[in-house]
This record gives sequence, structure tokens and C-alpha cells, in this order.
Amino acid sequence: MKKQFWTSILGLALATLSLSSNAVSQEVPELTLQQAEQLREQALESTLALDITASLTTEVGARLPGTDADKKAVEWGMAKLQSLGFDKVWKEPVSIPVWLRLHESAEVIAPFPQNLIISALGGSVSTPKNGLEAEIIHFDSIEALESSADGSANNKIVYISKRMEKHSSGRGYGDAGPARFRGAASAAKKGAIGLVIRSIGTDSQRSPHTGVTSYEDGVTKIPAAALSNPDADQLDRILAHNKTTTMRLNIQTEVLPDATTYNVIGEITGSERPDEIVAIGGHLDSWDQGTGAVDDASGIGITVAAAKLIAQQQRPKRTIRVVMFGAEEIGVFGGKQYALDHADELAKHIIGAESDGGAGKVLALSSSVSHESLHVVDEMLKLMAPLGVVRSSAKATGSADFGPMVRAGMPAVGLVQDFTPYFDIHHTPDDTFDKIVPEELAQNVAAWVIFVKLAADWPGRFN
Amino acid sequence: MKKQFWTSILGLALATLSLSSNAVSQEVPELTLQQAEQLREQALESTLALDITASLTTEVGARLPGTDADKKAVEWGMAKLQSLGFDKVWKEPVSIPVWLRLHESAEVIAPFPQNLIISALGGSVSTPKNGLEAEIIHFDSIEALESSADGSANNKIVYISKRMEKHSSGRGYGDAGPARFRGAASAAKKGAIGLVIRSIGTDSQRSPHTGVTSYEDGVTKIPAAALSNPDADQLDRILAHNKTTTMRLNIQTEVLPDATTYNVIGEITGSERPDEIVAIGGHLDSWDQGTGAVDDASGIGITVAAAKLIAQQQRPKRTIRVVMFGAEEIGVFGGKQYALDHADELAKHIIGAESDGGAGKVLALSSSVSHESLHVVDEMLKLMAPLGVVRSSAKATGSADFGPMVRAGMPAVGLVQDFTPYFDIHHTPDDTFDKIVPEELAQNVAAWVIFVKLAADWPGRFN
Repeated sequence: MKKQFWTSILGLALATLSLSSNAVSQEVPELTLQQAEQLREQALESTLALDITASLTTEVGARLPGTDADKKAVEWGMAKLQSLGFDKVWKEPVSIPVWLRLHESAEVIAPFPQNLIISALGGSVSTPKNGLEAEIIHFDSIEALESSADGSANNKIVYISKRMEKHSSGRGYGDAGPARFRGAASAAKKGAIGLVIRSIGTDSQRSPHTGVTSYEDGVTKIPAAALSNPDADQLDRILAHNKTTTMRLNIQTEVLPDATTYNVIGEITGSERPDEIVAIGGHLDSWDQGTGAVDDASGIGITVAAAKLIAQQQRPKRTIRVVMFGAEEIGVFGGKQYALDHADELAKHIIGAESDGGAGKVLALSSSVSHESLHVVDEMLKLMAPLGVVRSSAKATGSADFGPMVRAGMPAVGLVQDFTPYFDIHHTPDDTFDKIVPEELAQNVAAWVIFVKLAADWPGRFN
Repeated sequence: MKKQFWTSILGLALATLSLSSNAVSQEVPELTLQQAEQLREQALESTLALDITASLTTEVGARLPGTDADKKAVEWGMAKLQSLGFDKVWKEPVSIPVWLRLHESAEVIAPFPQNLIISALGGSVSTPKNGLEAEIIHFDSIEALESSADGSANNKIVYISKRMEKHSSGRGYGDAGPARFRGAASAAKKGAIGLVIRSIGTDSQRSPHTGVTSYEDGVTKIPAAALSNPDADQLDRILAHNKTTTMRLNIQTEVLPDATTYNVIGEITGSERPDEIVAIGGHLDSWDQGTGAVDDASGIGITVAAAKLIAQQQRPKRTIRVVMFGAEEIGVFGGKQYALDHADELAKHIIGAESDGGAGKVLALSSSVSHESLHVVDEMLKLMAPLGVVRSSAKATGSADFGPMVRAGMPAVGLVQDFTPYFDIHHTPDDTFDKIVPEELAQNVAAWVIFVKLAADWPGRFN
């Protein structure tokens, strides 16, 4: 016990030494810490993020890239930032493909005729006008499909039944997601003429989960759709009868000529280092069947509200830039375009973070910063501790839209949210405003104001 | 304290006296009580009800009266009762109207264009082929609509926003339901050309709740639909902007010539009083968008399993009759026909009960029996106590399908279920097998075997 005691004391002393050595070089000003704490408390009381989220989801609703609603979303974003008094508001064009869902239906023909509810996967080609009818071949996972014999799915509809597991980390998405990401291409390589997958989602509602599927050059493009989880359960029960099971699939989609959407950008100009940018944001677009409330109106609401609350207290020393990215859902078009457009500004991006994990509570803070600046992250964590936020050992990626900037060298943090509720409604018709828990959304803003305030007012660099 | 002590002793003595006086006249045989207790334990372990429910919902699926699926359900019912070894299995024709849902869509045109998810109410007439477009007039409740001025809704679409409250008793259905039951007629009387209501349901999913709406003779029939709760929330938020709100409503339905469906009936013949009937059952039909798992495949599963488990133990003294009623959803056609067909057998119906409250646990036992036979209900309650079942002070009605028989004089009990989960999915696409909790379904069967066994083997009458 004595030995342990002295080891602890020694550890503490070393830790203190290490902290001070950083702190001496580039300390976070005490006033900044006090202001951040005050902002945290204000954020917990504020309904600004909720109001912004309600406004986007109600006044615009669903906003698939390239549609009229997408144009309205851009107008909404410009007007919202202007009305909130951002110093500069502008938009930057992003060229995008336009894919539209026109019709989707599925039915079991034999042995037990009945309708099933599906959602065409984003980018799916159409079936023939009257649909296609074929025998189902069932695989437990995409790995089972990919390791099956050549021609195993010839002229059949492949069905992949793997169920996404529910974890607060959302890691089930990585396990089950590939059935959607590359399932259509993998099935076509085995001769299939169609693909249906169990939705990549953790709910038991008849709201199927859409999302992009990718085709491969040189591989036949086959129509692809997701069954809702209850419908996949039903198909599993039907298949358990071990009778030849046939399905009719009718998916009608349309690809329009490429169009232009926009990244909408607003800035609060910094008082001391206006050329240095703390970049935050979310994505403005959404899938077409819900109103994109948790994906990602809430991310827009959280980050816009955080910037506004900070500006209301005192002009930040660095510039806070909020980016409402365009066309994330269909392939991170806005995020990639932003990195291209701002390549020469990379060094000015002191740090960045996107909110694109829904409206669940922030559970942890990840980072991708230099060792020398980690103590600022420590200060953020101290202030976030009352919110229940702990350190994440994962490296911050910048999320989808700031990913290209982070890969190019921009430092980042990640405010890692609870994914437990998120994947129940992600990419479904049920991603609607009523699913947002106001207190959890406010907790997000409280965590974000701490990160943004410290990053904006601390004089050092994160790389 | 002393006084209280003596009062208790006195009360106990009186209670004992009262119990014995009944018990002497017509006691439940000790063997019956023992057998019922054994059946209860067997039922808790049995998956028979679950298997029957899975079979109907999987092999037939949705089964709207008058459709091919409805015919399949009748065949399924006959085959299921035969395969389970019921002594007699037959069907009795029921003449029904046939209403089909062909298309339903709704969109807000102004001020914020977007799609809303609706379900046409059962029996709704069609809009013109391309839909109708009109201004929305909002009422908080059907009472507000009905007390509004003549012509208040002229050429408008009436929207009733009252939300159904969630209670284990399901009493919110009685409060909110009239907006559906008579809303179309009430709106038409005020000049409306269409009706949309907030779904009569307690969930927050984009699965709207259908169900019959009734027109009135001499009142214009207008198309009627229910918005899902999230869509009603959205419309409420849109209306809160106080701008003229217009909607396009497109409902296409079809009425086919009257058709014949069936009440499917199976009997376990009684060993001592074969002419005396304990009548139980559920309804075989369902709405068209879910697979009618909790409404009412589970009621079929529970009652068929209860009869089968009892028969397996020892032939009951009275005949147990299981009725799978046809066409309940569209207006209790099977239940009414049964009462007509069996009017001369009324006295032979010793007691009856329908299971049509879903798959939630039985919480209470209600009854409508003579005072002299109440002690049998007491014995049932004693045996049900370990299942958490308490006495309900409500009078048993025979539920929808045995209602006409009970009103004609048939004694009844009611195994009153927990309605908390039921009204989340009642009449929605989400009424699917996965929503059933196996343990809760088994608890139902355990309660039902007690009721049926005692009713079948006790020698007295309930009226």
C-alpha cells in the first residue's frame, strides 16, 4: 500500500510538471475559461439551436440535392445567417449529379404473396417499367455473398439479411453498412439482377433506411433497395419455410443533368486574428423521405447557435466560420469542393469540426492536434465534464465534410455523440423534428461553445 | 387498535360466510382448480400462441375483408384448426361490402411545399383523379368543429389536430376517436370538401393509423385521411406561422360488389355437456397496411392455443368453441352475423369472451355474470393473481365481435389487456409480428386457460 501511495504521488507530480510545461508556453487565458463556462450555462438554457432546426425542417422540409427544396434550403441558409447578424454571408457553388426517387415497391410472389416496404438505395438504377420478378437468393452477410461461387446469383435477386447491432458508438454501421455501400456491385458480379438488403438501421419500424450504394465501372448496374427491419424479419420467416421464394421489385428513378448547389458560409469576424479561422458546420442537404432533422438540420442548428451565442457575449479573437455544406448525402460533394476551394487557406484553418451525428448527447471529445496543444483539449474537457463528456481515444476525422480538409492537414476535434437513437431513424422517413430531445440538443450546443470559444481565443496553434 | 382488530376478524368471518354460502351451492371442483393451475404453468412455457400468430401473419400477411388474402386467411383458419385436432371445424358465410385503398398522398402547397404521409380512412370516397387542392381550416377537436358556425369550412379541407393520450386503459381512444368515427360527416356538414385528422394513435412514427370513418345519409361523402403523428406535428408547426395554408389531397379508393367472407369455427366437444358452449375467439381479418399481428392475429393465437392446451390435458366437460370472426375491422360484420346465425343457440352459450386488445399483458378481469356465479370469477382471479391480473370493476362487453351476443344476454368476461403498446401500432403498417413480446403473449394464454377451464368444467351457469 505504501508503495502504491508513493507511486501515485510521483505520477501526480509528473503529470503536474507535464501540464505546467505546456501551460507555461501557451496558456488558455483565464478570462476565456470563465467566458466559456458562462457560455456553457447559457447554451443549456438557450432554444436557439432547436429553433433553427425547427425552422429548416418545417419551412424547407426534405431537401435532396438538386431539387427545388435544395434551392430553398440554400436561400434559407443565407437568410438565416444574415438575420442572425453574421458579419459575412456568402455561398460557393458545388457541381452535383441529381438523382430522383420516383417509385419503389416490392412484393413476395411466392410462396406467400404480400407487399413488402422498401426504399430504393441512393443512386439506384431503375428496374424495367413493370418491375422485375425473380427468385430470391439469401446471404447472411456481404462476405458470404462475395465468397460464394461465380454465378451463384445468376438471374436472381440477392437478399442480404445481416442486422445492424445497436451500440452508442454506432460501430454497428461499420459492420453492416458494406451491404449497402457495395452490395449492388458485389451482387451483380455474381450474376444477380437485383439487390435487396435488410435496412442498415437499428429500429423495428416499417421505415426503411436509404443511403448511397456505389456501382463499379465495368460491372452491370442493378437496382438496389433496403427492406425495413420488420419486412426483413418477415422475409426471413418466409425463407425459413424452405420454399422457392420469388419477389417482384419495381424501382423507378431518374438521373437529371448535373446541377449546382452551394456551400453556404457565414462568418463572425475575429477581433484580433481575423485571418485565422475556427471552422465549424453541418450539412444542409438531406435525404428525400424524412425532413433531415437529425441528419443534419440539428448539426446546422448546433453550430450556428454556438457561433451566435459566442458572438453575443464578446467578439471572438479569431474568425468563426460556419459552413452549411451542400450535397453531403449523395457523396460529400460540398465537403470535397470546400477543400478544393480553400486549399490555399488551409493554414488559416486553425481547427475544424463538423456536427453530423444527430441530436443525441455529446459523450466524448476526440482530437487530432499536436502534442503541444493537447492541454487546450484538456481545458475543453474540464469545462465539458459537467456535461458528461469524457476523452475519446479516437483520432478526430473532421467527419464527412471536413474530412478532406483534415486529411490535408487541418487540426480537428470531434464532439462524439450518442448514436443509440441516431441509427433508429438515420436516412428514414422518420428522421423528423419530433425525434429531437430539446435537452440533448442544448447539451450539444453547451459542449460546442466550449470548444469554439477556447479555439478562437487561445492564442496558440493546434499543429 | 383493539377495535380495528375486532372489526377485521368480523369482516373476515362475514367474508368466509358469504364465500361458503356460494361455494356450497355450486363449488368449482378442486380437480378443476388444480388442472387450471397446471395449465397456467404450461401456457407460460408454451409457444403455441406465438407460432399460430407467426403463421397467420407470415403465411397470409395483411387480410383486408373481401380480398384474395382474406380468402387465404379463411383457408388458413380451417386448416389450422383441423391440423390442431379440433373435433369440428366449419365456416359460416358473412356478406360484406368491399373497399380497397388504391392510392393516397398529401402535400402542403403553401406556404412551405412538402409531402405529408397519410392513410385514407376505411370507407373513404375518392378525391377527383388528380386530387383536390384547398385551404386548410384547423380545429383543435371534433367538438370545436361541430360547434363552429354553419359554413365555417366551406370549400376547405378540415384538419382536426387533437392528440390521443397514452394510458394503459386505452381510454384516450374514446376521447380522440370520434374525430375519425364521425369526422368526415361533421366536416361535410360545415361545407368541407375533405378531412384530414391527426392519427388516432399514441406513437411518434410516420405510420398513420387508418380505421373506419362513417358517413351519414343525406350528408355529402367527402374524402378522409389520417396524418401520421409526426406529420400532424409538422402541419401544426406550419399552421403556427399564421399564413394561408393549402394542401393537395389525393385519395383513390374503390368499392367492389359485395362479397362473402366467413366466420371460421372450431370446437372441442365437451365430455359431459357437449351442448353447452364456452365461446372464445378473435377476428381473422386485418387492415391492409400491416400484417394485423396485434390486431388481431394474436387474439386468434391466444384463444386457439388456450383451447388446444386445455384439450391436451383432458377433454373439457363443456364444449369449447373458438370463433375466428370475419370482417371485424370494416364494421363487425362477422360478429353481427354470428349473433343472427346463433340466436336460437343463445342459451347454450354459457359464457363468452373475445381477445381483441393486442398482445400486451392481461392486467384485469372484468365480468358480466350473475351475482350467484361471481364466486367462480373469484376463483379465476385467485388463479390469475400470480400473473398480475386484478379485478376490473368494468362490465364485460364481449368486445366487438361477441358484443351482439352479450347484448342479447350471453354472460361474458373480459381479459383486459395493457393498451400502452397497442395504440402505438393499432391500424398502422407497423402492426407486424416483431412487435409481439413472446412472454406477454404467453401470459395471455395463461390467463385464458384459467378462464376457459373453469367455465367449461364448473357445473353451474353464469346467468
